[in-house]
Amino acid sequence: MHSLQKQRRNFFHNAIKIITSSPSSLLASNNISSTAGKVISCKAAVAWEAGKPLVIEDVEVAPPQAKEVRINIKYSSLCHTDLYFWESKCLPPSFPRILGHEASGVVESVGDGVSDLKPGDHVLPLFTGECGECRHCKSEESNMCEVLRINPSSEVMISDGKSRFSTMKGKNPRNISHFLGTSTFSQYTVVHSGSVVKINPTLPLDKACLLSCGISTGIGSVLNVAKPKKGASIAIFGLGAVGLAAAEGARIGGASRIIGIDMNPNKIKYAKNFGLTDFINPEEHEKPVHEVLKEMTNGGVDRCIECTGNINVLMSAMEALHDGWGVVVLVGVPSSDAVFKTNPFNFLNGKTITGTSFGNYKPKTGLPTLVDMFMNNKLELDKFITHRVPLSEINKAFDYMIKGEGLRTIIDMKN
Amino acid sequence: MHSLQKQRRNFFHNAIKIITSSPSSLLASNNISSTAGKVISCKAAVAWEAGKPLVIEDVEVAPPQAKEVRINIKYSSLCHTDLYFWESKCLPPSFPRILGHEASGVVESVGDGVSDLKPGDHVLPLFTGECGECRHCKSEESNMCEVLRINPSSEVMISDGKSRFSTMKGKNPRNISHFLGTSTFSQYTVVHSGSVVKINPTLPLDKACLLSCGISTGIGSVLNVAKPKKGASIAIFGLGAVGLAAAEGARIGGASRIIGIDMNPNKIKYAKNFGLTDFINPEEHEKPVHEVLKEMTNGGVDRCIECTGNINVLMSAMEALHDGWGVVVLVGVPSSDAVFKTNPFNFLNGKTITGTSFGNYKPKTGLPTLVDMFMNNKLELDKFITHRVPLSEINKAFDYMIKGEGLRTIIDMKN
Ligand SMILES: NC(=O)c1ccc[n+]([C@@H]2O[C@H](COP(=O)([O-])OP(=O)(O)OC[C@H]3O[C@@H](n4cnc5c(N)ncnc54)[C@H](O)[C@@H]3O)[C@@H](O)[C@H]2O)c1
Ligand SMILES: NC(=O)c1ccc[n+]([C@@H]2O[C@H](COP(=O)([O-])OP(=O)(O)OC[C@H]3O[C@@H](n4cnc5c(N)ncnc54)[C@H](O)[C@@H]3O)[C@@H](O)[C@H]2O)c1
Ligand SMILES: [Zn+2]
Ligand SMILES: [Zn+2]
Ligand SMILES: [Zn+2]
Ligand SMILES: [Zn+2]
Repeated sequence: MHSLQKQRRNFFHNAIKIITSSPSSLLASNNISSTAGKVISCKAAVAWEAGKPLVIEDVEVAPPQAKEVRINIKYSSLCHTDLYFWESKCLPPSFPRILGHEASGVVESVGDGVSDLKPGDHVLPLFTGECGECRHCKSEESNMCEVLRINPSSEVMISDGKSRFSTMKGKNPRNISHFLGTSTFSQYTVVHSGSVVKINPTLPLDKACLLSCGISTGIGSVLNVAKPKKGASIAIFGLGAVGLAAAEGARIGGASRIIGIDMNPNKIKYAKNFGLTDFINPEEHEKPVHEVLKEMTNGGVDRCIECTGNINVLMSAMEALHDGWGVVVLVGVPSSDAVFKTNPFNFLNGKTITGTSFGNYKPKTGLPTLVDMFMNNKLELDKFITHRVPLSEINKAFDYMIKGEGLRTIIDMKN
Repeated sequence: MHSLQKQRRNFFHNAIKIITSSPSSLLASNNISSTAGKVISCKAAVAWEAGKPLVIEDVEVAPPQAKEVRINIKYSSLCHTDLYFWESKCLPPSFPRILGHEASGVVESVGDGVSDLKPGDHVLPLFTGECGECRHCKSEESNMCEVLRINPSSEVMISDGKSRFSTMKGKNPRNISHFLGTSTFSQYTVVHSGSVVKINPTLPLDKACLLSCGISTGIGSVLNVAKPKKGASIAIFGLGAVGLAAAEGARIGGASRIIGIDMNPNKIKYAKNFGLTDFINPEEHEKPVHEVLKEMTNGGVDRCIECTGNINVLMSAMEALHDGWGVVVLVGVPSSDAVFKTNPFNFLNGKTITGTSFGNYKPKTGLPTLVDMFMNNKLELDKFITHRVPLSEINKAFDYMIKGEGLRTIIDMKN
């Protein structure tokens, strides 16, 4: 009756609109870089095979076409969603590919018709965009732009259905797939201008990159989606950077009890550091974690945020909710064959389940509020950064995440 | 990991609080009826066995205890939830039982400590109550009073764990189970005062009874829970009185498109009569109904209200939603072994599912707004009434509902 496969595609598959392509403009603005209009050769970390270490390659990056921006990526960080697609947990594998979507950089050149960005601008490239025209962009409720929403199955730019990346294999150039429209594990990348957000140039790029995915997603999942009342209890499943950012959202939103759940015992130190009131390691309890939570909170938590991507955790979060008003928000990305199951009486009992992409922030019009919070010291990014590596050691970032060591690793893209 | 059975009990099982019982007061108010404090003999329709016709019996109704009210029921109507428990689709069967929960009447006498109701008051007895003191009653978000919420497994009054009903079987009196704390298929019944709502005596009782369940539930499911924006599209699955009341809610809430779905082709006349913009009989389409809906609405409906109780319909409603903002509200009561399944990417795509009991109206403090709407002719109840029978022919009401003939049958309780 309902086709699971179809919906999966819906999340991943974007109604591809062909925008009339025009030759890239050499003189789109006053600030012209010497490389504008030319192919740029640079280093990129290329994924050649599922789960195999990335290889640093020399790649050629074509100039931006109409409505596109070429960005000199300064810093990338690793988000679990990169790991997910590197492991090819979902969709047919698409290799070679340049992964990466959490990053910051400086505009190198812009294509025709780009009026809100110019060379030299400090920017965040985003895995989801804002065309400003579609029903989603015009709705207050959605950030899932019909033209520029997340589309992991796309390997190309939407304007012409072509890749801007290639590399020489033997004597022949080989195209490399884009990823989420961002592909930030390259020193230069081309991104649709609707998915590029200009930021204040005084912001430190080696931190601001975190705002282009995980931190914004976590904070928004609480402030924009779960919307707990002041004094609420909130349980956060999965204390990676996304979950801990949700905890920051809970703190900012005035939650009185912020309970972190993670089966990695090392995460207790982050729980303390981020001011969580409680930490539960499910493996230390005989009872299922939702029963532990219900006992701790006099009948159930007011809000749950799922940041592990494990479908069983999501089902447990539903059980952990207080009836009458409990809301669970899915943030983690489940495996492609996952099915959510629950007793429908949970709904009659007044429980709600929903989810979010990018914490429901609209990139261009919504993200600036978070940037402001960071500039005004209401949001600390340093504490999410536990490792730094040069591009040449990018595989270490993957290792740290797989082993659950630390939170975010910042990849310095210059070497 | 999550126990379905447990949650079912949660919806149905009320934390039974023992309120200190005191002898019923003979002189609780100035208006004393001649029957106050005495056992009353009257007629009631008793269910002796699952799915078997009710039997009109002489029953004895004990006086109300502390915080209780004895009501002379004037009119009952039949809601599908009565049918559900009569068929014993859920829970161990509990017979003999006096069913009925959609009704109106006049207070005959009140027990100790009842200050807001007095003999002669026109009232609606309710399957869910409002103690005014618990976390739910104090929360804006919930109407699921911890003390007086719906509890179909309870067969007795909560003050002393006893039944107020008995009937002679041979030479011995036999207790009869209460139902939802209301048991309105009796000329007299005893109800907790927290579940009794006083109404303006000018209201016609033979219509107002509809406000004590189905109509309020349907309207509230839209206005209080789904909360569509003006101009929204809304699909209503199941055009019984509850579904058509949801359609009224959609109209009042300013929906531009109200699509009714029912597999009973006769329901098209009600769809027209209630001003729905479209009617779909799923059996007339090759495609699943959610695909039909998506095509009709340019990608999906903004809100879905499930009023059939069929779990497959609920799953289909989820698929029919527009991504980014779609909300489905469960109102129908699924069978006890139903499991809701969905692709979790539906949540990441911005869809939401929730549900409601009594349309999220708090009985004492919320229902008056609906009563006002009825008094000010903003809500028409006549069109929900398609049949009238005397108590002696109550089984006809069941037949009409089973056959899908008409909407609500009003049972005149006097004969
Ligand atoms: N919806 C979105 O827009 C969006 C955006 C960014 C990330 N994500 C997703 O959010 C999730 C978290 O991302 P991250 O970068 O913080 O990942 P991460 O790997 O840094 O953190 C995940 C945490 O979950 C814990 N965990 C895993 N399984 C668990 C279980 N069964 N019980 C308890 N804890 C468990 C791990 O120990 C780890 O601490 C990922 O699924 C990622 O794909 C979604
Ligand atoms: N949540 C609450 O507080 C609450 C309150 C009252 C009633 N209810 C429930 O609401 C539901 C509706 O109650 P009602 O009194 O209007 O019932 P009803 O029997 O009058 O109407 C149900 C309608 O659903 C239609 N239907 C049944 N299966 C269908 C299917 N598979 N596809 C399409 N249409 C289908 C029937 O033809 C009928 O028209 C019941 O499940 C009832 O128990 C819930
Ligand atoms: Zn990410
Ligand atoms: Zn858009
Ligand atoms: Zn009912
Ligand atoms: Zn209460």
